[in-house]
Amino acid sequence: MRSHAITLRVRYAETDQMGYVHHANYLVYFEMGRIELLRAAGFDYKRFEERGFFLVVARMQVRYRAPARYDDELILETSVKKVSPVRIEHEYKLIRGGELVAEGESTLACVDREGRLAAMPADLLPA
Amino acid sequence: MRSHAITLRVRYAETDQMGYVHHANYLVYFEMGRIELLRAAGFDYKRFEERGFFLVVARMQVRYRAPARYDDELILETSVKKVSPVRIEHEYKLIRGGELVAEGESTLACVDREGRLAAMPADLLPA
Amino acid sequence: MRSHAITLRVRYAETDQMGYVHHANYLVYFEMGRIELLRAAGFDYKRFEERGFFLVVARMQVRYRAPARYDDELILETSVKKVSPVRIEHEYKLIRGGELVAEGESTLACVDREGRLAAMPADLLPA
Amino acid sequence: MRSHAITLRVRYAETDQMGYVHHANYLVYFEMGRIELLRAAGFDYKRFEERGFFLVVARMQVRYRAPARYDDELILETSVKKVSPVRIEHEYKLIRGGELVAEGESTLACVDREGRLAAMPADLLPA
Repeated sequence: MRSHAITLRVRYAETDQMGYVHHANYLVYFEMGRIELLRAAGFDYKRFEERGFFLVVARMQVRYRAPARYDDELILETSVKKVSPVRIEHEYKLIRGGELVAEGESTLACVDREGRLAAMPADLLPA
Repeated sequence: MRSHAITLRVRYAETDQMGYVHHANYLVYFEMGRIELLRAAGFDYKRFEERGFFLVVARMQVRYRAPARYDDELILETSVKKVSPVRIEHEYKLIRGGELVAEGESTLACVDREGRLAAMPADLLPA
Repeated sequence: MRSHAITLRVRYAETDQMGYVHHANYLVYFEMGRIELLRAAGFDYKRFEERGFFLVVARMQVRYRAPARYDDELILETSVKKVSPVRIEHEYKLIRGGELVAEGESTLACVDREGRLAAMPADLLPA
Repeated sequence: MRSHAITLRVRYAETDQMGYVHHANYLVYFEMGRIELLRAAGFDYKRFEERGFFLVVARMQVRYRAPARYDDELILETSVKKVSPVRIEHEYKLIRGGELVAEGESTLACVDREGRLAAMPADLLPA
């Protein structure tokens, strides 16, 4: 499971006075895409945290291509680009109709409760 | 210390496409008012949580009187209305110039880590 | 169409450090419930705004009964309680499993572009 | 005026259940930094929008170096890196004590009401 798509409908509260989705909300969308990709791969992030491991965002890059608006139905495609024992890189494409609205890349690091870099536990990872 | 005022400037991200502050953000403002009222009274909410106590919102009421807009400078007056060992009631008035923008009331309950109602520890309370 | 239910999954970004959904987000949920109730009744809020009418929140009341957590699947039931030419009152019940998480009430007022109270245009209302 | 610093206190609502500031909020902080840099340079962004021009975010990059927590006092340094008639590039450094919490870069594009790239009007720009 290297790629997964979810459908989102833009909430009114996510717009700003320019009439578009405020650009910070794309990071919330991307997070939802990552979590659902993990879930679809059999990985339960909630249980991951309960075991004392956390995936923290270390780097994020977004290119905003076209504005998204209230009530738009968007498709978010999330892909795993690279995995190491302590890091995961993802790619994101946010699409409306055939049009690319935004694309992004992130690096997540696995840390323990003290915030130290930690290898992801093998039994929590998808096969 | 029963009353305290803070000044807020409306952030761009807090507006919605109607061109006003989205109504959910008033609850964030009120929370800031409560925390600063507590701080001014010598109460450190951060330390309160570190000791295992939490103030959770049990009830909230808001009356929206006039729209607030991006870049508005607002004054938020927060008052303690009633205190019991396990609950605090606050009142809020959000003002721009002489005009009332919104007013609210909330009830907070003190709970422990398990979410059970707990008496606020005397040594953590302001004298 | 007086009542409508939607299903929500709690986003990670909606939690706060207490480990629960931050209480301001319930207002965002309620807004989604209202909009989907309107849509199910054949009312397109987006078109309503394009015609120069806006439903603004005049009053909001929430009772928080039990904390909601990350990844919870919640059912939100939204009902119309009362309608006049210029106002709509809604009721909300947010439920997880059989448990009531929160309940609320709101009054919305219909205003024009200048923010003046305006009668909702008959041809935009659901039959 | 090429650089400007503001002080921020982390709001409770900006944290997530990891106990840190949710990473999307850094984009809100950066926006505040840009706006205050513009204001300090004599540029009124509110008036800019009233004249029909908008600065939209075209690209954003963030490196998260250390977690920020509730109630932290942060200093945000915003600098203009490059200006063309239709684009502005900014750099951001978010600092707590002497420690770098996050750094970022953005490109903003100037557009008109129809979303077309537009040269920033000379009389609205700081001297």
